[in-house]
Amino acid sequence: MNFTIQNVLISIDDAYLTVDVQVVNDKIAAIAPNLDVIGTTFDGSNKLLLPGFVNAHTHSSEMWQRGIMSIFPLELWLAELYDFAPLDLEKVYLSALGTAVETLLSGGTSVVDHLVLTPGLELETIAAAVRAYREVGIRAFIAPLIQDESLSAGIPSGKSVQNHDPYFRSTAATLQIIEEAVKQFHRPDEGVNILVAPTGIQLCSDALFTGCIELSDRYNLCRHSHLLETKAQEKLAQEKYGCTAVEHLQRIGYLGDRTSLAHCIWLNDTDIKILAQTQSTVVHNPLSNLRLGSGIAPILKYLQAGVNVSFGCDGASSNDSQDLLEAIKIGSILHNITDLDYQNWITPKKSVEMASLGGAKGLNVAEKIGSLSLGKQADLVLYDLTSLSLLPRTDPIGLLILGRPTNVVHSAWVNGKQIVSNHHVNTINIDKLRQELFNRSQWETKRKSPSVAQIETHYRQIMDL
Amino acid sequence: MNFTIQNVLISIDDAYLTVDVQVVNDKIAAIAPNLDVIGTTFDGSNKLLLPGFVNAHTHSSEMWQRGIMSIFPLELWLAELYDFAPLDLEKVYLSALGTAVETLLSGGTSVVDHLVLTPGLELETIAAAVRAYREVGIRAFIAPLIQDESLSAGIPSGKSVQNHDPYFRSTAATLQIIEEAVKQFHRPDEGVNILVAPTGIQLCSDALFTGCIELSDRYNLCRHSHLLETKAQEKLAQEKYGCTAVEHLQRIGYLGDRTSLAHCIWLNDTDIKILAQTQSTVVHNPLSNLRLGSGIAPILKYLQAGVNVSFGCDGASSNDSQDLLEAIKIGSILHNITDLDYQNWITPKKSVEMASLGGAKGLNVAEKIGSLSLGKQADLVLYDLTSLSLLPRTDPIGLLILGRPTNVVHSAWVNGKQIVSNHHVNTINIDKLRQELFNRSQWETKRKSPSVAQIETHYRQIMDL
Repeated sequence: MNFTIQNVLISIDDAYLTVDVQVVNDKIAAIAPNLDVIGTTFDGSNKLLLPGFVNAHTHSSEMWQRGIMSIFPLELWLAELYDFAPLDLEKVYLSALGTAVETLLSGGTSVVDHLVLTPGLELETIAAAVRAYREVGIRAFIAPLIQDESLSAGIPSGKSVQNHDPYFRSTAATLQIIEEAVKQFHRPDEGVNILVAPTGIQLCSDALFTGCIELSDRYNLCRHSHLLETKAQEKLAQEKYGCTAVEHLQRIGYLGDRTSLAHCIWLNDTDIKILAQTQSTVVHNPLSNLRLGSGIAPILKYLQAGVNVSFGCDGASSNDSQDLLEAIKIGSILHNITDLDYQNWITPKKSVEMASLGGAKGLNVAEKIGSLSLGKQADLVLYDLTSLSLLPRTDPIGLLILGRPTNVVHSAWVNGKQIVSNHHVNTINIDKLRQELFNRSQWETKRKSPSVAQIETHYRQIMDL
Repeated sequence: MNFTIQNVLISIDDAYLTVDVQVVNDKIAAIAPNLDVIGTTFDGSNKLLLPGFVNAHTHSSEMWQRGIMSIFPLELWLAELYDFAPLDLEKVYLSALGTAVETLLSGGTSVVDHLVLTPGLELETIAAAVRAYREVGIRAFIAPLIQDESLSAGIPSGKSVQNHDPYFRSTAATLQIIEEAVKQFHRPDEGVNILVAPTGIQLCSDALFTGCIELSDRYNLCRHSHLLETKAQEKLAQEKYGCTAVEHLQRIGYLGDRTSLAHCIWLNDTDIKILAQTQSTVVHNPLSNLRLGSGIAPILKYLQAGVNVSFGCDGASSNDSQDLLEAIKIGSILHNITDLDYQNWITPKKSVEMASLGGAKGLNVAEKIGSLSLGKQADLVLYDLTSLSLLPRTDPIGLLILGRPTNVVHSAWVNGKQIVSNHHVNTINIDKLRQELFNRSQWETKRKSPSVAQIETHYRQIMDL
């Protein structure tokens, strides 16, 4: 697409400028005042233009259980989640639509979906998500969530001997599914990417990680994983490897500049150095980390060590939303209580950079997206500065990041295509989506999870509760 | 007003029931299925009815500087704030309108405005805020912010000798203003209340506190104050009194069941017992506390000790919004990282109780508002459960509190009068408010604060930075 946004506010260094932005063949071609009009024109007056953000870690199907999950730490929460996981492919499709819409309407133009696979219907699950993301038009990074150990293996044994059922599918079969998914769905130029994404050291063998590394190298795929989300996982890594999880992942070669790691809460200073050396990316999911009581990721230390950091909403059962602006706000101000020296705190402009360029770096696409730079793809978001939540006029980026913006995304383009116009997603029917979500659900209160009943006593023992 | 809300969802114990709610003469008269219709009918289907929440601490005029304040700790932030404080009474009026609207559209039907007074125009400032709150129709608790020491006195001296300018107005003159405000504006039956509200021990003499206690007793006024928001204030209390601020306030008689205290971060276990014994209320302002790096208030300890806790947004320059649902969400999940035992964590239903009944208790009106109880005034909020942000249907209260509700307040009544209908505030013209906020402001970037330049070196020394 060719288009020109006229008289729009952009941020350069410490000032705001009013400029025109030309997009030619889906790429940013010029940024300057008073440009010639090329293609369609858009009125940018009283609007702020920013690069699209990346929702760098989520699990779309968790949307079906948002609001109802017990107030639990990760290990028990996960047991409850899986007891009530939806299996229906249409639901997978609908929650991917919902995830895309909420991400878009909060400034995100890319989403990393660490997608929970329906057993026996793995490729169909991925197909359902791909269909949703293609329909909406958001840039999709689908990271099929895989493991080869059963859920109970994710909790440290402590002094007891714990036996775990074998996982229902072999490591080799799992890797075959991922390879097949790559062949069927990995189309970076069309905005659909497949990542290798073992869920984490707590439920994956070295063979699974190594197989993923091979696939990543063969097909040039990014790598994703959870990393040290809880104190229990820190203990488990010591039990399993006799070293930290980061040291182990480095040893087996999983880290690198195409690797993004969700959470990263329980790392020590040596681990942080390893992330910096390997140029790995940390995906910060502050709301989930608070909701599950996982802890505060040492984000200021990462930034000081030169580690790339981006933001994620995490799945909507542990958040319980996909509002990226909320994750960015809380993920920025949360760290002010971890360091008395305010000179180290994250500024709103830094938050924007982390959410856009930081996200792009973690997905190895910083050359293509993540900033308002000539030659980059037009993944752009236009914010309406006449929204009550962005008034009075002060510092637009300051208020966007530190306020609570509501209905502020006026337009969004992904790869040069406009998918939000005048505050509405124009590629799908939102009313129909709401109706489908409504019809396929019911109001209820707390449920009893048999798996939680099974593991809670052991969990409390291990955590000294 | 008389009206009947039909077929509405309410929460009772661990279940949701569909009922009718009758309001007669502005009071809740009956709650049961299939009631006779009295007065106007409202369709409650697919909606959730909750008591209105209390925005239990804010400073409305800070709206003018939201988004632009430097990323500073309280003491420096305050110096910057006052260097750029607006003086214009029309601005005071407009920001009170904005504060009321954002509070209402996020579930609040009452607001405590710790109102910054324009020097020399103190009663006019209060009059401007009263006018705004009366126009909107929100229940207003106006707490004129007073002090009798100059700003620099709020920072500990440490080993240096600090001289402070005397405050521009005498203690007696300040107390006279408050008494006059009570006479002119304190009309509890009309929804306008005046509170005594010394800003805090950091800038107030004992004479000012004592004078406020006398006024509070004479006119039956609630008491409000900031308390131990920062580590610097904890140090200052020791310098000033040789004991903790809580011990001192107890000694001079400021604490009690009509006293609400904003922040309460740096309290020790003895202090917490004193708050419980005196039945004082803690107002938790989690977003401001993170933004300013003040710390995490020990809310789980307060709840365990039996201290009443409510939620506030704090002023919009330290938040930078007046969205009460955001403050409730973060103020609930934030504490999960402070206690490994999830059995102590705050559930969404508890959050609702804190935000409604907790707020009412802190203002000595728990007999009148704060719950869906027969005989209480109709301060009610109806949430639209077909909003995308409250779908799919799961646990409505869980999703309202833990999600990121957007445009969910369908209707709101204060004292039986409907002031939000079909998602719109119907008492004032919101477009005109937006236009006024727009016209009286301009986009800008960071400013230089002369007061910060004066005190920063001393502040860094005192805080060992």
